[in-house]
Amino acid sequence: MSKPKVFEKPLGSKDYLPEAVAKLRNIEFRVLACMERWGYNQIITPTLEYYDTVGVASSTEDKKLFKLLDRHGKTLVLRSELTAPIARVASSLLKERAFPLRLSYHSNVFRSIEEEAGRDSEFFQTGVELIGDASSEADAEVVALAIASLQAAGVSTFKIALGHVGFLNGLFQETLEGFADAQQALKEHLLSRDYVGYREAIKGLKLSADVERELIGVLRLRGGDEICEQARMVTQHPIAQDAIRHLCEVYDVLKAYGVSEHVVIDLTMIGDFSYYTGMTFEGYAAELGFPVCSGGRYDNLLSQFGRPAPATGFALKTNRILEVTGKDGVEQPRRVLIAYEAEQREKALQLAISLRSQETAVAVTTQLLGNEPVSEAGYDEVIRLTAAE
Amino acid sequence: MSKPKVFEKPLGSKDYLPEAVAKLRNIEFRVLACMERWGYNQIITPTLEYYDTVGVASSTEDKKLFKLLDRHGKTLVLRSELTAPIARVASSLLKERAFPLRLSYHSNVFRSIEEEAGRDSEFFQTGVELIGDASSEADAEVVALAIASLQAAGVSTFKIALGHVGFLNGLFQETLEGFADAQQALKEHLLSRDYVGYREAIKGLKLSADVERELIGVLRLRGGDEICEQARMVTQHPIAQDAIRHLCEVYDVLKAYGVSEHVVIDLTMIGDFSYYTGMTFEGYAAELGFPVCSGGRYDNLLSQFGRPAPATGFALKTNRILEVTGKDGVEQPRRVLIAYEAEQREKALQLAISLRSQETAVAVTTQLLGNEPVSEAGYDEVIRLTAAE
Repeated sequence: MSKPKVFEKPLGSKDYLPEAVAKLRNIEFRVLACMERWGYNQIITPTLEYYDTVGVASSTEDKKLFKLLDRHGKTLVLRSELTAPIARVASSLLKERAFPLRLSYHSNVFRSIEEEAGRDSEFFQTGVELIGDASSEADAEVVALAIASLQAAGVSTFKIALGHVGFLNGLFQETLEGFADAQQALKEHLLSRDYVGYREAIKGLKLSADVERELIGVLRLRGGDEICEQARMVTQHPIAQDAIRHLCEVYDVLKAYGVSEHVVIDLTMIGDFSYYTGMTFEGYAAELGFPVCSGGRYDNLLSQFGRPAPATGFALKTNRILEVTGKDGVEQPRRVLIAYEAEQREKALQLAISLRSQETAVAVTTQLLGNEPVSEAGYDEVIRLTAAE
Repeated sequence: MSKPKVFEKPLGSKDYLPEAVAKLRNIEFRVLACMERWGYNQIITPTLEYYDTVGVASSTEDKKLFKLLDRHGKTLVLRSELTAPIARVASSLLKERAFPLRLSYHSNVFRSIEEEAGRDSEFFQTGVELIGDASSEADAEVVALAIASLQAAGVSTFKIALGHVGFLNGLFQETLEGFADAQQALKEHLLSRDYVGYREAIKGLKLSADVERELIGVLRLRGGDEICEQARMVTQHPIAQDAIRHLCEVYDVLKAYGVSEHVVIDLTMIGDFSYYTGMTFEGYAAELGFPVCSGGRYDNLLSQFGRPAPATGFALKTNRILEVTGKDGVEQPRRVLIAYEAEQREKALQLAISLRSQETAVAVTTQLLGNEPVSEAGYDEVIRLTAAE
């Protein structure tokens, strides 16, 4: 096995140079400030968690978890998302605090990746969890906050696709009872948005014309709140009916927030996280083919940590937002270089202190006047203080 | 092997609740802003690095490195400090940028710990590296910036102990040539500040009275710039003389910065990092027995990454600063809870939007008026909007 070259870093890992850090931190600060104004308080959890607790409860596929052994032979994971760790905290350190809990985070997360994929093994998520509130008002709150967060991050054009896992579950129970494999195959087509594959799979099932029409009709259930009425007529299954009622309440609350223009009801959408139990949503920016945020309701996760409670939340995919946003709003101070000769040292250093107190970034050097001239690149102004002055 | 309990987290790892996060982030923001004003630009490096490159180059004892294997059997480490990763970046991604480079960071770092120690296995460091400037002005700049950073972090009373690895190296070469074990033993006594042990070890060496007096006299070499004159007379060894000259130049520059009141020259101090080659320093807060920052010059590290250059820098031990500072300067917004009945939804949500735009933190709920009253704890004001209004 060859040694890595000295300048190499592990596959899928990344250095952020100052220009990228300024943008990333600008997004982080603006989004966290937005979340704070919505009543969410930030927490920080450890990078390493036990596999048997947080690892298993997390929504990440087992093979994508970054695993290692501690000194006692217990399996640890590098956190792959924050929802399960926050559920652990809500059930332990915060167990005396009354619901609802509103918690926010900005954190790096890890995925063990295949060499071919070319994806990051470490990236950032910025999100919230609203724990202890089962209402459609709570679901609407996190959707509205996702919208406000995308706006705070500088994403100008985007749509939120809003769905509910209960609709398809009810419909499939009604039409495909006992055909678990078929149900799973159809869900996977929808998850990967492969609508052609979905149609073909239905044709292959040799169902009655009515049922076939019903299942293919699902693909048309995308739009504004006219979808509520249409969906109610597709299936009478009580789970599906409950899902539609809840989803349309969420949509009503979003209208009261004044943000429904950003929202598309999409009953073909099933969240990619196994723990979702109700509403799910994904945000799409105009410039990108993949989601910039995803979220949903997960009413069964907290019970795994011993404090059963309904919960809902979302995470921004911060690195993708970094790709679609410009430098707008990134505040850079004026940069000044003071080059001085030894005789002018005190004057130079005191001038630097004074300019720094006026929010100017000041570097000092004795080299610009000597034998090893330093680059003036990157400075808005160079002040020279020589002995002659 | 027993399974961990669901609420457990791995040994030495930590959750930061909102109150602690507010304090920690306040320190982070203020210190990074201070570093930016001194001309330092932030970078972010990955959590995982190759053991054979960054792991080996880092200053952390091998047994304290958190190691894991990647899919190809290469050994990775969780970063244990940022100086080696930044040296890697300076030599690769930044290799076209002219020296000096001024880089800052705030980052979590990891140490594999023994069960008994009760110390954190993950904690934060906030620091800078000044790469490509060998001058005493550069060393003084990082010391002065460490002082400004401690002040920005809210540490009110502290001292910086300033030393130089060359002084003891020269003195020991002169007096203990060929006795490598004895030199090492004496250095370890000084590193752990065990002055009694240092004296006893010298007595045990059966040296001439002159040499014994010279070596024990080192313990008195702590104070202001009067130490420069005293130290110059202790040994004529050229390495020691160079060290004193450089250190006293650093002290002169610190006087020009107006911060020498915070600095104590301490020639018994040897930095705890193996890669230091020149000046070293440690900061002590009045309230704590262990350092709140440490730094020094490391002129040989960059060559390990293929871009030889002198360099100097420091890191604040951010978690320790969290312990010694109060909540001064932690800005918390006013917190308002709006409790509303469904009929008042639009009014309530629009009021929330309006208050949020005025930097107020606003949570909304329908529960306070219903069957499951939520806690009003943590809010400065509760606004109730009922249907009757």
